[in-house]
Amino acid sequence: MNNHYNDDSLALHTDLYQINMSETYWREGVHNRRAVFEVNFRKLPFGNGYAVFAGLERIIDFLKNFSFSESDIEYLREVGYQEDFLEYLKGIRFTGTVRSMREGELVFANEPILRIEGPIVEVQLVETPILNIINYQTLIATKASRIKQVVGDQIAMEFGTRRAQEMDAAIWGTRAAYIGGFDATSNVRAGKMFGIPVSGTHAHSMVQAYRNEYNAFKKYAATHKDCVFLVDTYDTLKSGVPNAIKVAKEEGDNINFIGIRLDSGDLAYLSKEARKMLDEAGFKNAKIVASNDLDEYTIINLKAQGAKIDTWGVGTKLITAYDQPALGAVYKLVSVEDSEGNMTDTIKISGNPEKVSTPGLKRVYRIINRTNQKSEGDYITLEHEEPQKEKRLKMFHPVHTFVSKFVTNFEARELQHTIFVNGELVYEVPTLQEIRAFVNENLTLLWDEYKRPTMPEEYPVDLSQECWNNKMKRIEEVKTNIEEMIASVNE
Amino acid sequence: MNNHYNDDSLALHTDLYQINMSETYWREGVHNRRAVFEVNFRKLPFGNGYAVFAGLERIIDFLKNFSFSESDIEYLREVGYQEDFLEYLKGIRFTGTVRSMREGELVFANEPILRIEGPIVEVQLVETPILNIINYQTLIATKASRIKQVVGDQIAMEFGTRRAQEMDAAIWGTRAAYIGGFDATSNVRAGKMFGIPVSGTHAHSMVQAYRNEYNAFKKYAATHKDCVFLVDTYDTLKSGVPNAIKVAKEEGDNINFIGIRLDSGDLAYLSKEARKMLDEAGFKNAKIVASNDLDEYTIINLKAQGAKIDTWGVGTKLITAYDQPALGAVYKLVSVEDSEGNMTDTIKISGNPEKVSTPGLKRVYRIINRTNQKSEGDYITLEHEEPQKEKRLKMFHPVHTFVSKFVTNFEARELQHTIFVNGELVYEVPTLQEIRAFVNENLTLLWDEYKRPTMPEEYPVDLSQECWNNKMKRIEEVKTNIEEMIASVNE
Repeated sequence: MNNHYNDDSLALHTDLYQINMSETYWREGVHNRRAVFEVNFRKLPFGNGYAVFAGLERIIDFLKNFSFSESDIEYLREVGYQEDFLEYLKGIRFTGTVRSMREGELVFANEPILRIEGPIVEVQLVETPILNIINYQTLIATKASRIKQVVGDQIAMEFGTRRAQEMDAAIWGTRAAYIGGFDATSNVRAGKMFGIPVSGTHAHSMVQAYRNEYNAFKKYAATHKDCVFLVDTYDTLKSGVPNAIKVAKEEGDNINFIGIRLDSGDLAYLSKEARKMLDEAGFKNAKIVASNDLDEYTIINLKAQGAKIDTWGVGTKLITAYDQPALGAVYKLVSVEDSEGNMTDTIKISGNPEKVSTPGLKRVYRIINRTNQKSEGDYITLEHEEPQKEKRLKMFHPVHTFVSKFVTNFEARELQHTIFVNGELVYEVPTLQEIRAFVNENLTLLWDEYKRPTMPEEYPVDLSQECWNNKMKRIEEVKTNIEEMIASVNE
Repeated sequence: MNNHYNDDSLALHTDLYQINMSETYWREGVHNRRAVFEVNFRKLPFGNGYAVFAGLERIIDFLKNFSFSESDIEYLREVGYQEDFLEYLKGIRFTGTVRSMREGELVFANEPILRIEGPIVEVQLVETPILNIINYQTLIATKASRIKQVVGDQIAMEFGTRRAQEMDAAIWGTRAAYIGGFDATSNVRAGKMFGIPVSGTHAHSMVQAYRNEYNAFKKYAATHKDCVFLVDTYDTLKSGVPNAIKVAKEEGDNINFIGIRLDSGDLAYLSKEARKMLDEAGFKNAKIVASNDLDEYTIINLKAQGAKIDTWGVGTKLITAYDQPALGAVYKLVSVEDSEGNMTDTIKISGNPEKVSTPGLKRVYRIINRTNQKSEGDYITLEHEEPQKEKRLKMFHPVHTFVSKFVTNFEARELQHTIFVNGELVYEVPTLQEIRAFVNENLTLLWDEYKRPTMPEEYPVDLSQECWNNKMKRIEEVKTNIEEMIASVNE
C-alpha cells in the first residue's frame, strides 16, 4: 500500500475518465452548465418480476461528504494534473439536485430510479460511485425479496459474510437483504451499524474441540440461555439429534432449547426424521434451522418434498447474487444546457432498440386502481405532465404501441421524491424498519402474477404519449445530426 | 444507520457464533488452549488449472489492528453479553502465529493456504474476516490471471467499478486483478491506494454534451496531450472513426493520438474495419481499445476471428467473477490442545469423501524438477518431515493411491512463510510489483497443460506417506469415537 496516503476519501472512487472529462469542461469554461442524468437498468435480474431499490442512504452520505482530500489532490498531482485544475478540484462540493425513488420502492426495467441535476462536472464525477452502490444493493435487495417470497412466513437469515465479495459487500449486502425481507444476520458489524437482529450459536469446530457432541452441547448450555445445537458434525440422526435431545432434557428450564441446526446432507430427509425425533421427545416447539448453499430454487424444492424446516439460513447464493452477480444499471445524460443557457434533451441511440434511452426530464407514477388497490402499471411522463388530473389515462406499451388500455378511477402515485436541492439535503432518511414496511406495502399493490419466482408476467412500464412523442422526435433529430456529421467528416 | 456508533472497527466483522463460542470457551476457562486452523478450498474456480492467492496484506492489516472498540463493546452489551465477558473481550489482541503462502503464490485445491495457531478464542474470532478476504481476492486474482493468459502480451485493463459488489470489491478486486496480471485500472482510488497505473479518457456523455464527435474530440484534444477517442456514440465507422482521424490529423504533434476505443457492436468486424481506416490514414501505431462485457471466452473468440484489438478493457465479468462469484475456501480445525496440554490432531469427516479434512499441522512443498525447472506437483507433509532431504520422493494421488511416481533430482520449495509469531509481524510485506513478478515466475514453473483456460490437466497435490497414514489413523479414531457417542447417547 502507498502508506503516505493514509486518509481514504471516497471522492476518487470513480473512473479516471470522469476526471479527464471534468478537466476538459473546466478548461473550456463549460463546467457549470447544467446537466441531468438518470439511472435505470434495462433488464430485471434473476428473471424476477420486480426489483427492490436499495442504496439511497449510502448515496446520500456519499454526496453530502463529497470533497477531494489533501491526499487526493496530492495523488492527482502525481498522476500529472496541473495546479490550476487541482486548485479548482479542491473547492468542489456537491451542489446539485437529486430526485430518487425511496429505498424499498419496487422498480422495473427502463424506469428512472434516480435523477441528478447540477453542474456537469459534479454530476459526471459522481456517476461511478452512484452506480457501484445502486447496482449491488438493489441486486441483493431483489434477490432477498425473491427468496423471502419462497420462504413465506418462516424465518430467513443472512449467513453469507465469509463468501461475500469483500467486506463492504457483506455489510451493505446484509442491509439490502434486510430491506428485501430477511429477518436477521450472522454479521455482528452489520447488526451494530444498522440495528439488524443478529443470530448464531456455535460451529462444527466447537464440537470438534470438545471431541463429542454431548460435551459440546453441555458446555454451550452451561454458558448460554438460548440454545440451537448444530447436529451434523458426525452423524446427524444417530448422534447429533439424540445428543441435542439428551442435553435439552437434562437442562430442562435452565435453557431455552430453541432447536437444532442442519448444515449438510439431505435436508429434506434429515429434517423430517429430526422433526419426528424432537416431537417424540416432547420438543414440539423446537425449531429446525437449515443451511447449506440454499437459494430460492432449493427452498421451493425442499418445501415441495415436505422438509420440516422452520428457519432458512442463506449465505453464498444471496450475498453474491450467485446466479446473476451484477445488475446493469446505467447513468444516462437526458438533458444538458447549451451555449445559450437552454436545456436540450439528449438521447443515446443504439443499433439495439432496447438500449435507446428516453430523453428529457421525467417523472414516474404508479397507476393504482382505486377499486382493487392493485397497480395497473407504471407510467413515465415528462416533467410537466399531471396524470393525476386525467379522468381516463391511456397506457400503451412503449415498443409494441398497439398494446394499450384505458384506466379510470386511479391514483397516480409519484415514485421519485426530492432528496437534495442545490446540494442541500431536504429528505428525511427513513429508518430500516420503515423501509422494510414500505417494501411489504408496495408488494401488496402487485398482483401475484408479477411475484412468481419463475416466469412472472411482465409488469407494464409505459410512456405517456408526450414522453413517447418526445423520444421519437429526438431520435429523428439525432439521425439528422448523424447524417450531418457523416456528411461533414467526408467533406 | 445507528449513528451513535460512529467508529467502524472491523473486530465485529464476524459471525455471531464466533462470539458465542468464545463466551463458552472463556466461561469454561479453556479459552487459552491452543488451536490450529488451516484455510483451503476444495475446488479450483472457473474450471481453471490453478488459483492465484491474494488477500494476505489485508489480513495482516486486520490482525495487527484486531481489537474491540468502545462502541463494539457497547453494542455487544446491548445484544445481551454480560460485563465480565465484555471486560475480557476489551483486552483481546491477536497473539497467534500465522504461516501463509505469499500473495501471488499459485495454489491448488485441498492445500493449506494459510495456517493460524493461537488461543482458541482468538483464532476462532478471526475466521470470518479471513475467509471473507481470501475468498474474494483469490477469486479475482485467479480470474484476472485466466483472462491475462488469453490476452497474452497485449494490455488488459480493469474497468469494473460501477458493477462491482460495493466499494471494497471495486478496490480490492482491482488490486487482485493487478496481481493476476492486469496492467491498469480505471479506478482512481485504487490507483491512489496501491500505486496501480490508472487509465481512461472520456465517455459517451461527453460526445452527447458536445452534440457531435468532431467538437467533442477537438475539445478533448485541446485539453489533454494523450488522446483515446471513444468512437461508438453514433455510427462507429461512418462518423466515429473518421472524426477521430480528422481530429488526429488536424492536431498533429499537439497531441499523442494513442488511438480509439470501441464499446459496443461487433468488436471483431468494427476493429478490423477501423484498423484499415487508421492504417490508410497513416496512423499505423494508433491502438484500438475494446470493451463491452468481455471475458476470457469472448476474447479468445474475437482473437480467433482476427479482431484487431490491442487493449482489452474488462469490467463486470472480472470484478464480479461473473461465472463463479464465490470461492468456497473453508477454515478447518486441524489440531487442538487437550486438557493435559497436549496437541491432538482433529479431523472433520463427511459422507462426501472430498470434504474430509486432512488433520495435523502440515507443510506444503512445490516439487521442482531440477532438470527442466518445471513443477512435478505439490507435496503436503506433516510439520516435521523434510522432503528436501530425500533422494527419491514417492508422490501418489491422495484418493486413487495407485496413481504414483518417483521423483529424483528435485528441489522441494516450501510454500508457506512465517507471517506472525505470537502476535508479532515478522514478515516483510512485498510491494505489488514484487507480487506481480512473483506470479509470473511461478507460472513459468507450470507446464502449459495446467494453464489452458478450458479443460486443463489436473495438477498433482499429493500427501506424504506419513500425512496420509495420519489421516487414515484419525479417520479410524473418529469412527470409533462416533460409535462410542452413538452407544452412549442410547444408554
